[in-house]
Amino acid sequence: MNIQRVTHDLVTTARTPELAHTSLRVVEDHKGNLEVALDPVGTRPGDFVITIATSAARHAAGDFRITTDLTIGGIIDHWSEERWHD
Amino acid sequence: MNIQRVTHDLVTTARTPELAHTSLRVVEDHKGNLEVALDPVGTRPGDFVITIATSAARHAAGDFRITTDLTIGGIIDHWSEERWHD
Amino acid sequence: MNIQRVTHDLVTTARTPELAHTSLRVVEDHKGNLEVALDPVGTRPGDFVITIATSAARHAAGDFRITTDLTIGGIIDHWSEERWHD
Amino acid sequence: MNIQRVTHDLVTTARTPELAHTSLRVVEDHKGNLEVALDPVGTRPGDFVITIATSAARHAAGDFRITTDLTIGGIIDHWSEERWHD
Amino acid sequence: MNIQRVTHDLVTTARTPELAHTSLRVVEDHKGNLEVALDPVGTRPGDFVITIATSAARHAAGDFRITTDLTIGGIIDHWSEERWHD
Repeated sequence: MNIQRVTHDLVTTARTPELAHTSLRVVEDHKGNLEVALDPVGTRPGDFVITIATSAARHAAGDFRITTDLTIGGIIDHWSEERWHD
Repeated sequence: MNIQRVTHDLVTTARTPELAHTSLRVVEDHKGNLEVALDPVGTRPGDFVITIATSAARHAAGDFRITTDLTIGGIIDHWSEERWHD
Repeated sequence: MNIQRVTHDLVTTARTPELAHTSLRVVEDHKGNLEVALDPVGTRPGDFVITIATSAARHAAGDFRITTDLTIGGIIDHWSEERWHD
Repeated sequence: MNIQRVTHDLVTTARTPELAHTSLRVVEDHKGNLEVALDPVGTRPGDFVITIATSAARHAAGDFRITTDLTIGGIIDHWSEERWHD
Repeated sequence: MNIQRVTHDLVTTARTPELAHTSLRVVEDHKGNLEVALDPVGTRPGDFVITIATSAARHAAGDFRITTDLTIGGIIDHWSEERWHD
C-alpha cells in the first residue's frame, strides 16, 4: 500500500457502468505524481491516506464488481509532509 | 487509475482472438510515455481519460474474457495540460 | 518479492472494514521509498523483511478477504544495510 | 498494453512444466529495456507488437494454465521507430 | 517475464506458513536491483533466468497456495552480461 495525499475530486460524466455513482479522488504521492483512487472512506482534500492497488482494490471498494485498480483504505492519523520525505 | 490523454487509434491486423473487434487507442501520460488501452467508452483524440489497469481492466471491458490489461474508464470533464503538471 | 526494512507502525483510525484489526507497518526500500505492509509475522522496527505484492499478498495475510496489496512474508536472518547496496 | 519490438527468440532448456512447448520472444521497449513475452501470434524479429501483462497475459496465451505474465496480443500495422519517440 | 541473474540463497527463519519449505533466491536485474524469487527449477548462483511475476507466479510455483509474487520459470541457455546491456 502507498501513502498518498488527497488533492481534489474528479468529475467524469462519461463513465463505464461499473464506476457509476462512486466517489473518485485525485491523489498525489510525495513526488507530486497524480493518480485517481476510489474513495469508500469519505476523505477531504489534504488528508494523508493509504491506497490499495491491484485486485485488492476491488475488494476494498466494498463490491468486487466495481472496476477500480486503486482504492483508499484508510486515513492516516499522524503524518505530515516532513515525515513523507524522511 | 491513471490520467492519460488519447492520441490516436491503433491498427493491428494480426491479433489474438480475444482482442478481435475491440477498439484500441494509443494513450500518453504527462511525460509522453505511450501505452495502448481498450476503449469501451468512445473517446476521441485529445480527450483526457482515466485508465484502469490490472485485472479490473478486463471487468471494465464489459466482458471478462477480453484480454486487456488497460481499459479506459471515463472521460474527465475538466482537465488541461497545465493541470497535469501541477 | 522485495527486501525492505520495517521503520515503524502506522496508525489509522478511519479504515475500510477489511483492514480493521490488522497490524500495518511502514517499510522502506534501499532508496528510502516508503510503503505500507500488513504484518502477520510480528516484526520490529529495524527488521529486514521480504514483502509479497499483488494478489499473493491477500493469501499471505492468512485470510483472502483482507484487502492488502503488500504483506510481510518473513524476516531475513542475515542482512545488513551494506549488503543492500551490493 | 505496451508497444514493444521483437528482438529474437529465447532458448531455455530447463523450464517449469507450464511453459514447456511455448514460444518465447525477447522484446524491447523504446528505451531498449528487455523483457520476455510468450508469442501465440507468430512474430518475427523486428515486428512492433502490443504486449499484454498481468493476469490477462495468461488468458491471452490461449490456455489459462500457461504461467506467463507477458503475452504478445497483436502485430501493429503501421509503426516505426520515429513514431515510438513522439 | 524478466531476465535476471541468481546471486545467492535467502535464509529466513520466521516465515508465513505458505512459504515454508520453499527455496528462495536473491536475483538481480541488469541494473543490480535485488528481488527475491521462489525457485522450483533448481538454479545456482550465476544462472541467468526468466522470472514470472503477478498471479502467474503462484501457478508457476506448482501449488497455487504458495504466496509468491515472483517465481523462476526457466534457466536461459545462452546469455551473458554483455548481451544484457545490448
